[in-house]
Amino acid sequence: MVINDEFYMSLAIAEAWKYQLLTYPNPAVGALVLKNGEITSLEAHQKAGNAHAEVLALKSAYLNKNPKSDLQAINNPFAIHDYLKENHNGFFEDCEVYITLEPCNHTGKTPACSDLLVALKPKRVIISVLDPNKKASGGIEKLKAFGIDVTTDICKKQGDDLLFPFLRYMSGKFVFFKLAVRANGSIDGGYITSKESLTYVHELRNVIDTLVIGGNTVRIDRPTLDCRFIENGKAPNIIIYSKQKEFDRTIPLFQIPNREVVISDTLDTSSGYKMIEGGYSLLERFYDRIDMLVLFISPNFKNTNDILLSELKFQILYSTRIGDDELMLLKKRL
Amino acid sequence: MVINDEFYMSLAIAEAWKYQLLTYPNPAVGALVLKNGEITSLEAHQKAGNAHAEVLALKSAYLNKNPKSDLQAINNPFAIHDYLKENHNGFFEDCEVYITLEPCNHTGKTPACSDLLVALKPKRVIISVLDPNKKASGGIEKLKAFGIDVTTDICKKQGDDLLFPFLRYMSGKFVFFKLAVRANGSIDGGYITSKESLTYVHELRNVIDTLVIGGNTVRIDRPTLDCRFIENGKAPNIIIYSKQKEFDRTIPLFQIPNREVVISDTLDTSSGYKMIEGGYSLLERFYDRIDMLVLFISPNFKNTNDILLSELKFQILYSTRIGDDELMLLKKRL
Repeated sequence: MVINDEFYMSLAIAEAWKYQLLTYPNPAVGALVLKNGEITSLEAHQKAGNAHAEVLALKSAYLNKNPKSDLQAINNPFAIHDYLKENHNGFFEDCEVYITLEPCNHTGKTPACSDLLVALKPKRVIISVLDPNKKASGGIEKLKAFGIDVTTDICKKQGDDLLFPFLRYMSGKFVFFKLAVRANGSIDGGYITSKESLTYVHELRNVIDTLVIGGNTVRIDRPTLDCRFIENGKAPNIIIYSKQKEFDRTIPLFQIPNREVVISDTLDTSSGYKMIEGGYSLLERFYDRIDMLVLFISPNFKNTNDILLSELKFQILYSTRIGDDELMLLKKRL
Repeated sequence: MVINDEFYMSLAIAEAWKYQLLTYPNPAVGALVLKNGEITSLEAHQKAGNAHAEVLALKSAYLNKNPKSDLQAINNPFAIHDYLKENHNGFFEDCEVYITLEPCNHTGKTPACSDLLVALKPKRVIISVLDPNKKASGGIEKLKAFGIDVTTDICKKQGDDLLFPFLRYMSGKFVFFKLAVRANGSIDGGYITSKESLTYVHELRNVIDTLVIGGNTVRIDRPTLDCRFIENGKAPNIIIYSKQKEFDRTIPLFQIPNREVVISDTLDTSSGYKMIEGGYSLLERFYDRIDMLVLFISPNFKNTNDILLSELKFQILYSTRIGDDELMLLKKRL
């Protein structure tokens, strides 16, 4: 293994993928700080409104060497910026900061990362992908204008893959399909995946605008479709995809307060951040309209009779262990 | 992400898994060197007879800071040991060496790693798992006797998982089953996996003692079962599992020179390092006798009619991207 910019950027990209799909409407971003060659932090943006990846990484790097600092208790992004600007005392001047995405140059829910970097003056900033968001771009020019050495396009292909969902929803819509299968492809016959996988699905439900579900699933499974495995989760609005408009209103999903439920027989996925949950037949129906497949694969085999599927082709963007299962994020192969 | 011993050991363990199953009869081992806190190398043992992981990592660390050294051209394990012992000049005294397995204390095909470490005197050696091989153990005592600080049991659970195949074949036999499936579980209807996956299978064939294959596969597919995708590969001996002893001898697998082919109707997997290649029915038949499942999952879906399988349970030890596919190494869940 060669220890170089690509090695460190790969660590930052891998860290960012852990929060992919959960940072909506922000992109998934990772960052790593080397101080005098030593990794002092590796962080990722976790949730819109929370600090950006590079801010978390700068904070962790500072705390790594100053563990008793008051910064430990500070989580508000503005307050982190202020603390570091006031107290850095040249700490970052022998640091190199790896970021999977150009630092934002725009004050929104959080202050501009480019301003913080300019104030802390690391000796080098290494970036994978330029910011495609016009409103937030210009970070690199600002760093350079203040004399910071900037390297770009490191692991650009992997950086682009990481940004794929963000680019799609920036363009107006992002629709992903969640499917859970066993290693032999069976999808009925009881629970397929582990509690950790179900919890991750509840985290996804908590950030999406709308959950699309098939009418048959609603009739047969009588689901709740809430986020009960996570704290303070918000149950998403529902579109039931069904030609038949009649449903038993005692099915638990209809009982959730403040939830909008629409019954529709169109495949409209034209806007918003939507998750479709279903099996093979719904996947076939929506294949042309989805941007990504979120595929859980349990390591177990069980014989059931639910295989019926045309030929669908995907490309793996990311895979990871989650509980007992393997999770794969797939993009359609066009 | 906390940057600590566990973080660095995880990198070494991940590197070692890349060569899992290929290091036979040696264990898969990874190593990482920190010099003054900076990662200067990350290496894994790749092949029996080649240098051990910690020797490769010590070599790479030295070259990282002395790129023009003559060591660059030296690959023989004895010569690397000699070069480093003569030329280290205190280079490793500010180094910490992470190794997934206790350094060997025994001269075999390569010299004892413990002797090299004692000569180079790193300030600390961090180990995940103690050497279960009585013949090679005692490394830690030697390091301590020479005043080197030793930390053990870091990421021990993951270190044990990494060592699982080695422990099995140390006990007399290791049998793994290779299965390739599409995301919906289909396994017929043409090639399933990418060229890179096939190449990896050829690398496996090159190190195993025996390849077990079902009689039906031989009759229908008429395979060659060689290692033609890799250089200088040795086609393995074959056991055809079949009650019917008659085979068309023009089938390519019978044409390979110096190959032993046995036709057997017993499920004998009592000794050696064996790979079984097959589909669902062979997996069902051998499930009780295998130690590990090597599962390739293509990201594509295709409807075929080959699903027929009882309930089989596995635990994921490792997963990684290989070509277009996901590769999972699974252990039976007992």
